[in-house]
Amino acid sequence: MGVGDVSKRILLGRKLRSSQLGETLLPKRIALPVFASDALSSVAYAPDEVFIMLSLAGASAYVWSWKIGIAVALVMAAVVMSYRQTVHAYPSGGGDYEVATVNLGATAGTTVASALLVDYVLTVAVSISSGAQYAASAIGALSGHEATFATIMVLVLMAINLRGIRESGTFFAFPTYAFMVAILGMCAFGMFQLAAGDLPQVESADLHIDPAPGYGGSLTTFALVFLLARAFSSGSAALTGVEAISNGVPAFRKPKSRNAATTLLLLGMIAITMMMSVIVLANQMGLKYVDPSDLDRLTLDGQPLPPGYDQHAVIAQIARAVFSDFPPGFYLVVTVTGVILVLAANTAFNGFPVLGSILAQDGYAPRALGSRGDRLAYSNGIVFLAFMAIILIQAFNAETTRLIQLYIVGVFVSFNLSQLGMIRHWTRHLKSEQDPTVRRRMVRSRMINAVGLVFTAVVLVIVLITKFLAGAWITILAMIIFFVIMRGIRRHYDNVNAELAADEEDKVMPTRVHAIVLVGKLHKPTLRALAFAKATRPNVLEGVYVAADPEATARLLQEWDERNLGVPLKVLHSPYRELVKPIVDYAMEIKKANPRGVVAVYIPEYVVGRWWEQLLHNQTALRLKGRLLFAPGVMVTSVPYQLRSSQIAREREERELARVRPGDLRRGQVGDRSKRGQINR
Amino acid sequence: MGVGDVSKRILLGRKLRSSQLGETLLPKRIALPVFASDALSSVAYAPDEVFIMLSLAGASAYVWSWKIGIAVALVMAAVVMSYRQTVHAYPSGGGDYEVATVNLGATAGTTVASALLVDYVLTVAVSISSGAQYAASAIGALSGHEATFATIMVLVLMAINLRGIRESGTFFAFPTYAFMVAILGMCAFGMFQLAAGDLPQVESADLHIDPAPGYGGSLTTFALVFLLARAFSSGSAALTGVEAISNGVPAFRKPKSRNAATTLLLLGMIAITMMMSVIVLANQMGLKYVDPSDLDRLTLDGQPLPPGYDQHAVIAQIARAVFSDFPPGFYLVVTVTGVILVLAANTAFNGFPVLGSILAQDGYAPRALGSRGDRLAYSNGIVFLAFMAIILIQAFNAETTRLIQLYIVGVFVSFNLSQLGMIRHWTRHLKSEQDPTVRRRMVRSRMINAVGLVFTAVVLVIVLITKFLAGAWITILAMIIFFVIMRGIRRHYDNVNAELAADEEDKVMPTRVHAIVLVGKLHKPTLRALAFAKATRPNVLEGVYVAADPEATARLLQEWDERNLGVPLKVLHSPYRELVKPIVDYAMEIKKANPRGVVAVYIPEYVVGRWWEQLLHNQTALRLKGRLLFAPGVMVTSVPYQLRSSQIAREREERELARVRPGDLRRGQVGDRSKRGQINR
Repeated sequence: MGVGDVSKRILLGRKLRSSQLGETLLPKRIALPVFASDALSSVAYAPDEVFIMLSLAGASAYVWSWKIGIAVALVMAAVVMSYRQTVHAYPSGGGDYEVATVNLGATAGTTVASALLVDYVLTVAVSISSGAQYAASAIGALSGHEATFATIMVLVLMAINLRGIRESGTFFAFPTYAFMVAILGMCAFGMFQLAAGDLPQVESADLHIDPAPGYGGSLTTFALVFLLARAFSSGSAALTGVEAISNGVPAFRKPKSRNAATTLLLLGMIAITMMMSVIVLANQMGLKYVDPSDLDRLTLDGQPLPPGYDQHAVIAQIARAVFSDFPPGFYLVVTVTGVILVLAANTAFNGFPVLGSILAQDGYAPRALGSRGDRLAYSNGIVFLAFMAIILIQAFNAETTRLIQLYIVGVFVSFNLSQLGMIRHWTRHLKSEQDPTVRRRMVRSRMINAVGLVFTAVVLVIVLITKFLAGAWITILAMIIFFVIMRGIRRHYDNVNAELAADEEDKVMPTRVHAIVLVGKLHKPTLRALAFAKATRPNVLEGVYVAADPEATARLLQEWDERNLGVPLKVLHSPYRELVKPIVDYAMEIKKANPRGVVAVYIPEYVVGRWWEQLLHNQTALRLKGRLLFAPGVMVTSVPYQLRSSQIAREREERELARVRPGDLRRGQVGDRSKRGQINR
Repeated sequence: MGVGDVSKRILLGRKLRSSQLGETLLPKRIALPVFASDALSSVAYAPDEVFIMLSLAGASAYVWSWKIGIAVALVMAAVVMSYRQTVHAYPSGGGDYEVATVNLGATAGTTVASALLVDYVLTVAVSISSGAQYAASAIGALSGHEATFATIMVLVLMAINLRGIRESGTFFAFPTYAFMVAILGMCAFGMFQLAAGDLPQVESADLHIDPAPGYGGSLTTFALVFLLARAFSSGSAALTGVEAISNGVPAFRKPKSRNAATTLLLLGMIAITMMMSVIVLANQMGLKYVDPSDLDRLTLDGQPLPPGYDQHAVIAQIARAVFSDFPPGFYLVVTVTGVILVLAANTAFNGFPVLGSILAQDGYAPRALGSRGDRLAYSNGIVFLAFMAIILIQAFNAETTRLIQLYIVGVFVSFNLSQLGMIRHWTRHLKSEQDPTVRRRMVRSRMINAVGLVFTAVVLVIVLITKFLAGAWITILAMIIFFVIMRGIRRHYDNVNAELAADEEDKVMPTRVHAIVLVGKLHKPTLRALAFAKATRPNVLEGVYVAADPEATARLLQEWDERNLGVPLKVLHSPYRELVKPIVDYAMEIKKANPRGVVAVYIPEYVVGRWWEQLLHNQTALRLKGRLLFAPGVMVTSVPYQLRSSQIAREREERELARVRPGDLRRGQVGDRSKRGQINR
């Protein structure tokens, strides 16, 4: 089929060959690490937070720790079961945002989106802060400089993501499996020592915890319940990231939903096992752990600790004790924990622009974010995310404990709305579904989601009560700001769409075309613009020259005559060297003289390659085009002339288009990029 | 004459009615203050610098001060006489840059331009620093915070100039005349007291100056000569700004050159009178003045001064003593001196963009600077100037004495090249001139310029010897940087021009036009773009739609059919929502299939008014246009559709165009802006 052959309309584009597509999709063994880093990494800080909260009442309160661990595990099990339903019902990868929007409406959807945006920022801040703490455990010199180190890490992640890295399954697989092996291995070894009766004590075992002011003596029931609630809601940080798989269903191999659900179950079991093992071991090994900003509550034999004492993270303490005869074991555990935390932060860098593009498609974010490969849009998102995370890290001095206070509320807002949405989903489908087997399955799913909702609603209430003043209000404020901005953008788009809706009068065709070609000099670009303009056979064609200098004008007129171009040249007088206004005024006058015609302004432009060359050229053309946009009935045509140096820019552009965007892997989009978007026939 | 009547070419534009033009030109009594502030304001710091240099050898060296004053006055007289010749020979207002370029070639011209650019920065830094010193004399609280105050003043000036102020003659006239009256009145009153024998002593009269290390005891002849040379070259700061009138000849009433020359003479006489009066009075009143950073060399009765002692500027000390019975007199003198210094700094804000536009016309600066009313270009220049001045003020802690070391070398570089150029000018004209009267005048002019050259050359050598290590090297380095950049820009433009030069093959006309209209939705902008494209009657016309979502595609196809547009729609498949690449590839393919044709891409754009609305629209169009520029044989047409809110932007733009640019007054361009650049017939 020739290109000119357009007498009939053709729908172009083939289905991607499934073999080709299959290559890019993830088997479960790879999908697990790809989506697990976020959820598993929270094992690195969630138990610590439980111990910190309980320590307010002294080490005696640690007897509650494993009960709180079980409560968190129960909630996590409920959430995992719930999301298995979501994965089956919404295999498109829209996740919580889609579930809330479809079932609860736009307001709920936007609320979830706000919560997710805030969560991405906090994922980066919390994971990197916790990672910095682990780094300080292994490298003493970093102690006290955690905030600086964390900031540098965020900047490095930002740079990597701006640059674009080709993520692969193995990129995630190795460190994630290493983390699982290291932590589970450490726990198993510890359990073995426990069974053998020679479990060593951690470094903080001999310390004594002074209760915090107000927690001395025996607690009232209310105070105890509130303390446990606080510890529980801090421990709920372990649930962050569980929902990630529901956004990634399209990246799974077929049967996508089944595989995703299985992976989710696996993930939940591993996470629960790890968390419980760490809590149990820490208890058995005599851990004493307080808020890092409250280190003076730790005493040794009634004496305060030496200044500069550094409290290591729980997993680091356990690893050091368990592997006391085998230091490489300690370093391995700490290293892989640090790496998994960085990977978890990286998932936010992946997810943020992806969510942005979904929001853009729905009109809640600038449309430009919605089309792939918009480098600027992606870059802005990544820089924004890094910038916000750094602000949080600096404001909270990279203290995980204080950042956690902000973290969990956003996660549970989206959990809740998502569960509520799923219940509505099943109820709606039950109305039309006849098949009793299917109905029974749906009722069961609805029951699971309802249980999930109850659990997550209770947690949300607890989190709101215990954490609001401790920092959750910041999260809620940020969510409101995001919410208002998104609604404003959507309202704007709606207004514009209403104003743009076509009606019948818009089919009127202009009666004549008056073309003017801007002439600055008689060089190749001008001649090309004249030729192109002539080729469109307008009713009137003329060159237009803005004259400031009589000498230059005379020279140009003479050259124009000599070249015998067959096109008249109009000279506009501009004694003060203004270029834009005379041309705009002239175009408007032509239009006024012939209101049903259209004015076509041809602007010769030359295309250069280097950024500083671009500053030296076409600035006036740019300004002129900007101004002419406001002139009704005028269209502006750029006729480019490519200079040799433009080749540089073209090559740069090609490289840019071939680059991988953050999050591609999770959306099943690591195919052969050069094949994409091509016209096939 | 109808607009359509273009069968013959017409040179549009009338001569501005001279009555209208005359209104904007300056009579001598207004021109003097407009151009004098820079030159006169140096009286506020030049005598101080002479005293500071001499003070190195103790107060006894002050006997040399009036002799140095006479030497400076002689040089100034020579320079004034020389520039009177320039004003007659080059009435176009190009000033030193034009003189050097025309007579000595591009290298000399660029050198002068570099010197002038550096001088503008230093004018701001020196004037504002000196003004801060005067402000501290009057307001004790500012003492010690001069650098901060000066920085704020620069920022205020920058803001005013960015905003644009309508300068008028009276804007300059009042403060400049007030300055003259105040200083000359003060001096006359002092002279009267001197004659009456009751001249009071200044506040520093009782102090003793310890000679600087190395200057104690009797000086060797060489050391004395070097000291006097240093004092003389510092005093030469009084000459800065004298050349301003030569840039402003076009702003004078007719006979322009005569009036400008007379004004220059007047200016020189006033400046010399002021400077000499101040030096004589200071000597008679027992002034003791040292470098502000060397205050510990001042002693009172053998005791060091109390900490926090503030040394006031020379004019401030004289005014306080002379008007000891009349404090308002003191405050008036200090206030008008401060104001005139700010006005002097403002001239740099005016001159910098004007010089930029002249350089742009010659290809030494980005072309965009050459057309008037380019807000961005002007703004960038103003911000750049303020930024550089602030760096200098902060680096030198707003100490006038140290900034002066950088100042004078640039001024005298341009003085020298200008004088040399003038000598060449007269020599060249003498070759062809026959009329003996004219020849005699020319020989006389050449003699004057030769004398000027000798004087300024001697000063330049002295300045280079005495100031190179003290800071002049910074100026020279900056000049070299400006020089290299300007030459680089010019070379780039030359290369581009060579590449663009038209030859015969460029007249070939494309054989056919294949037009494609981008369709995203079927709304008014798309329909307008289709109608406009149809009006150009291309050989092939089709709509092009990039399909990502099958549902939306089906909807659009149906609507397209229903509307019965008579144009085929091509659907490009893009599974990953890429928009730009499919379209670019398609355009390139059309072009490849028909190499002698041209592809016209029509892009519907809607025009909104607010900046944040612009972020929400047309980003993809922008990116697409950027990409298509690199595709040979493709032209890109924007078809704008103006939304209601675009009215806001149009009105803002109108306001912007009506705004006065810095430096308008000095170029005789304060006419009725709305009349400019209009098409007249």
